[in-house]
Amino acid sequence: MVTLAIDMMGGDDAPGIVLEAVEKALNDFPDLHIILFGDEKQCNIKHSRLEFRHCSEEIEMTDEPVRAIKRKKDSSMVKAAQAVKDGEASGCVSAGNTGALMSAGLFIVGRIKGVARPALVVTLPTVSGKGFTFLDVGANSDAKPEHLLQYAQLGNIYAEKIRGIGAPKVALLNIGTEPKKGNSLTKETYQLMSADTSFHFSGNVEAKTLMEDAADVVVTDGFTGNMVLKNLEGTAKSIGKMFKSTLLGSVKNKLAALILKKDLSEVMKKMDYAEYGGSVLLGLDGIVVKAHGSSNARAFYSAIRQAKIAGEERIVEIMRETVGEA
Amino acid sequence: MVTLAIDMMGGDDAPGIVLEAVEKALNDFPDLHIILFGDEKQCNIKHSRLEFRHCSEEIEMTDEPVRAIKRKKDSSMVKAAQAVKDGEASGCVSAGNTGALMSAGLFIVGRIKGVARPALVVTLPTVSGKGFTFLDVGANSDAKPEHLLQYAQLGNIYAEKIRGIGAPKVALLNIGTEPKKGNSLTKETYQLMSADTSFHFSGNVEAKTLMEDAADVVVTDGFTGNMVLKNLEGTAKSIGKMFKSTLLGSVKNKLAALILKKDLSEVMKKMDYAEYGGSVLLGLDGIVVKAHGSSNARAFYSAIRQAKIAGEERIVEIMRETVGEA
Repeated sequence: MVTLAIDMMGGDDAPGIVLEAVEKALNDFPDLHIILFGDEKQCNIKHSRLEFRHCSEEIEMTDEPVRAIKRKKDSSMVKAAQAVKDGEASGCVSAGNTGALMSAGLFIVGRIKGVARPALVVTLPTVSGKGFTFLDVGANSDAKPEHLLQYAQLGNIYAEKIRGIGAPKVALLNIGTEPKKGNSLTKETYQLMSADTSFHFSGNVEAKTLMEDAADVVVTDGFTGNMVLKNLEGTAKSIGKMFKSTLLGSVKNKLAALILKKDLSEVMKKMDYAEYGGSVLLGLDGIVVKAHGSSNARAFYSAIRQAKIAGEERIVEIMRETVGEA
Repeated sequence: MVTLAIDMMGGDDAPGIVLEAVEKALNDFPDLHIILFGDEKQCNIKHSRLEFRHCSEEIEMTDEPVRAIKRKKDSSMVKAAQAVKDGEASGCVSAGNTGALMSAGLFIVGRIKGVARPALVVTLPTVSGKGFTFLDVGANSDAKPEHLLQYAQLGNIYAEKIRGIGAPKVALLNIGTEPKKGNSLTKETYQLMSADTSFHFSGNVEAKTLMEDAADVVVTDGFTGNMVLKNLEGTAKSIGKMFKSTLLGSVKNKLAALILKKDLSEVMKKMDYAEYGGSVLLGLDGIVVKAHGSSNARAFYSAIRQAKIAGEERIVEIMRETVGEA
């Protein structure tokens, strides 16, 4: 049995999508137990493996993260993180304020001893549909080479345990594939990663091949990672917009669009982040999953499933024993 | 009359595409004079405003940049750069080895006195077709705030004079729009750019809105810029590949593709870098334009036109007077 703490109040379409996802997850997974935190007046579901806890506050998207965590002690997000800290739940899931959830992770759940900087990890789509694990996408903007080495170790465990990839290829994001390319950060990190035998280092990868299954795990600093993540999303969206306006540009194009509709929606599904679950703050002494703020029920369900697998696979315990000690 | 020095031997499809572009440029622009450097046996064009100079060497794509520039003294690239240094030509254009051309720019043409680090600038497509000026995309991987401030000044002049944009909006690429967002480099740069009155600073822009006309000039360090540039190119290519395989996936899809063909090629043209010319190394005491290695004749022609406008608009003189003195 895995127990998860769920924040009912976070996200653009909460609590509706959260309740729908929680109900589906409980029905699909007979070994899942959920503690749900939120406003009791808005909770309209019941289940034998669902425990509800009322919270009088909620953290808004506009709240200043650290202050919100410190002041709103009876918010659904703080209470969910506290349940992880207290060992009641192995992980928590929220679609709320990203900064606040990261703060809750750092200040309430806490770091694994020996992990210098937790990293935010996401799984991004590739053309083949396989996807790749990418970190850090924004937890730590000014990273040092030793932080990036730990990201590689954490990402390696994540890809193996959560995504089921045997001996993942772990690469360093850089502006050239040759070992001597890059800025001082990537040049030094290359040396550290080459010397580490706890994972399979496959060298540098360039941003232009990320969607072409260049590696299973790609490591970078939080500034560059956030930049590339937003650039990927934005470029895909802008190109999609251009195609869409072409498809709707004339009567004959609309006809062609009708013919292509089903196959194009398959392509769009491959590009859909919802399929790949939420982002996870790795290096904490518990599982903290952030579902996208604009999550629909399916995306939130993916995030719950992800947290459940992380609990079953005991990734926090593994990270504590291997990365924490290192 | 503007005189340009052209490297006939650089690029994947040289000298064929170079000769075609040079001939067209000479026919289109009656005030253009060209000095062409290369192997005399391969030059098959003649023109009253074309001066040919034979070179016994050429720099290969695989050559180590700095060494090539120092050793291959009679190469077409070195000779073209030397013509700029000697004042025979106001600028040079090459589609050859990027690193070698940057070295030729730095060591032969030389920096404008007072410019700490030259920056590589490109113009990238936006959804509207307007495009934006982006620098540095790789000249200097470990940049400091004061370098980024100079890039803003250089980019501002470039956008105004070469692209004809009145009072360009100059922005800083960052991982959030708020002034306090980012790493230590962008936070400090934000302060410097805010305090400078020589250009119109429009604040931070995120990588997700780059293709949406977020700004006319976008400034970043060479590591991040190169990363984003390659990510944009790679993502566009990967998505294009997915669409293409859908369009050719069945007989009915092929039919739809046929209907859409003309309009889709319009979209592709908007995304085509060749339309926007080459990249330019700004901050040098002469104009150095790098056409893409895989340029066709049209792309090389755009690069020649770009160098010609730069010469006419006397951007080097303006930069020397404003940025150099500053």
